[in-house]
Amino acid sequence: MMPKPFVFEKPAGMRDKLPLFFQASEQIKQQLLNKISVWGYQMVQTPTLEYFDTVGEASAISDQQLFKLLDMEGSTLVLRPDMTAPIARVVSSSMKQVAYPLRLSYSAPVFRAQQREGGRPAEFEQVGVELIGDGTLSAEAEVLALMSDVLKETGIQRFTITIGHIGFVQELFIEILGNAERAEELRRFLFEKNYVGYANFVKNMPLSSIDSARLLKLLECRGGEDALLKAMELAGTEKAKKAVSDLMQLKKILGDYGAEETVNFDFTLLSHMSYYTGIVFEGYAAGIGSPIAGGGRYDDLLSRFERSAPAIGFAVRLDYVMEAIGQMPDTSSRTCILYSGERREEALRIAAEKRSSGTPAVTQDITGVENVDTFTNRFTDVIYLIGKTQGEETK
Amino acid sequence: MMPKPFVFEKPAGMRDKLPLFFQASEQIKQQLLNKISVWGYQMVQTPTLEYFDTVGEASAISDQQLFKLLDMEGSTLVLRPDMTAPIARVVSSSMKQVAYPLRLSYSAPVFRAQQREGGRPAEFEQVGVELIGDGTLSAEAEVLALMSDVLKETGIQRFTITIGHIGFVQELFIEILGNAERAEELRRFLFEKNYVGYANFVKNMPLSSIDSARLLKLLECRGGEDALLKAMELAGTEKAKKAVSDLMQLKKILGDYGAEETVNFDFTLLSHMSYYTGIVFEGYAAGIGSPIAGGGRYDDLLSRFERSAPAIGFAVRLDYVMEAIGQMPDTSSRTCILYSGERREEALRIAAEKRSSGTPAVTQDITGVENVDTFTNRFTDVIYLIGKTQGEETK
Repeated sequence: MMPKPFVFEKPAGMRDKLPLFFQASEQIKQQLLNKISVWGYQMVQTPTLEYFDTVGEASAISDQQLFKLLDMEGSTLVLRPDMTAPIARVVSSSMKQVAYPLRLSYSAPVFRAQQREGGRPAEFEQVGVELIGDGTLSAEAEVLALMSDVLKETGIQRFTITIGHIGFVQELFIEILGNAERAEELRRFLFEKNYVGYANFVKNMPLSSIDSARLLKLLECRGGEDALLKAMELAGTEKAKKAVSDLMQLKKILGDYGAEETVNFDFTLLSHMSYYTGIVFEGYAAGIGSPIAGGGRYDDLLSRFERSAPAIGFAVRLDYVMEAIGQMPDTSSRTCILYSGERREEALRIAAEKRSSGTPAVTQDITGVENVDTFTNRFTDVIYLIGKTQGEETK
Repeated sequence: MMPKPFVFEKPAGMRDKLPLFFQASEQIKQQLLNKISVWGYQMVQTPTLEYFDTVGEASAISDQQLFKLLDMEGSTLVLRPDMTAPIARVVSSSMKQVAYPLRLSYSAPVFRAQQREGGRPAEFEQVGVELIGDGTLSAEAEVLALMSDVLKETGIQRFTITIGHIGFVQELFIEILGNAERAEELRRFLFEKNYVGYANFVKNMPLSSIDSARLLKLLECRGGEDALLKAMELAGTEKAKKAVSDLMQLKKILGDYGAEETVNFDFTLLSHMSYYTGIVFEGYAAGIGSPIAGGGRYDDLLSRFERSAPAIGFAVRLDYVMEAIGQMPDTSSRTCILYSGERREEALRIAAEKRSSGTPAVTQDITGVENVDTFTNRFTDVIYLIGKTQGEETK
């Protein structure tokens, strides 16, 4: 057993949000949610705890990252590590009667245990959407355009959305390597963005020089239109070709949305979310090391919940968005009416007037304050109603 | 081990909120938060997980009701069972430099494991405030008046706030019974609102008839002004007398707030929150079996976190408030623009116009829809943009 934590300590990766930061963060979140709402997505809420055997296993977050506990019957519960699997559960049960396509959205904390102290947050807020039951490219374009629109709404100056295709990479690897196990090894290099390791590994594989060159060429399939053309050259199977031509078509549709400038392609992009089956994408902001948003197509997840359907979604990480935005000026006005007992009624009346017009007003009995200067310091405006005879004074 | 849960199942006491209900619930929550905000309370957010040895132990929720888990170092964590203890932690650490009195607020899910299947929710949302560092009656009146204002804001037709005083009851019990253990037995009857059990227990105690009569008389100290007068007669110690005269004064101040009609007194009212030290109160709505709101004074909790201060707060249970309000009409308009590929641009343009004026609009490629009738059914307004030559049609 560990020694007792110090009384002020929080568990690893857990954070408090203090008033000014929380207010700014809520404001941004509300802007994102408003944007998502005018696109016709409807919010749902799911519980923090789910069964490990249902949502936990479907969520595709590695076992060490799950916060697990036992309920009173001995079943294993998890703190939800993402919102996609819980929403798949809802869509397949209490919303079973609502016809596809379904457009749902959420704003919720998710939980991923961190291996190292002082590292990433273990609880963070995701704002996202799921478009379920629509397998068209139009659905993919819609979700990408909405993500772009949502990121624009944050006011982040420079962001890009990078699109990859898990199906394409998988086709290429299986075609050349023949078995899924060796494909998995290569995928891991790409997922870790270890391109040097990938190249070395490929060079040491017992492959024909043509196959080896093709695998290395994958690393060059990054950028705009040219990435798509290079990928098309690389494509050896009908499925791989279709993946690329779909992306070409997707690029056109994104043009109709006016969202094509924020988008580029990267066929080395893979996701840790193992349920993705087609396109995957990530949003990046200047100066932020991790993706501020991400998503993809997951056409197999719903079948686990017995309401099979193609689906696509994205999630924005509110904490990284706030980091990208940087410090926001505090422009809120805070009035305090400091009163002594004799003038309480007057103080309450003035406060009620301010409040009814939407202006925040604190009323404070002066006998409840130890040091008036330190206390009043934090207000932009202080009204003193002290003693029977004194007049109204303002700081 | 239990058999695997069925794939759609949720852990006991866990609930989903579907779009219409969630929207209504968010709307009400926002109204409450706006009200709290104009009273000058500032929101904070704390993590879902806390150490058992710090916040868990301070929270005063019984051990069986805590959801516990182990972190990677072997420390016990809890899902926060209330927000008062976490806020005490924040106030004593990262907000240590901010002078008392502090007015903080929150909106957060809290977690309490349920002993029986199919019972109460194990996760529910609380909206509340803490006024920390002000021991005056003015602070108590402010928190009560704000709770009354907040409940008014929900539109609930009939609600009452019942005020008790833990200090008074404790004084009476100790004075008559002499030791804390026997006092605890009596307290339990009151907490469980088992007045018959209380009376029987008192009658069987080896007490003088005067003492016995006094303990029974406590059951009559309920109602308006008369409850206060009866309690004053009953008060045997200076502390007990002060408690009652404080409540008389509190009633006057509540008059200044215009909040006195919603308030009555009940000296048998105790709370399961063992950290309360003075007044305790609960809000009731017609037809709802459990209190929809509650709170009290807790003057000892902050000292556990080494920033000793008197404090008072309340929490509103959003789920019970929604139950009291009952079903709300769905008045939202939902437009769907159903298009075929040739008219995508036109569809997106119309949608963008609607969205920019704040009107929610779904765009849907018709090839993504299996059954157009079932799908369009849920929209209040459908615009068809199908084929090259057809005109615009509206359902």
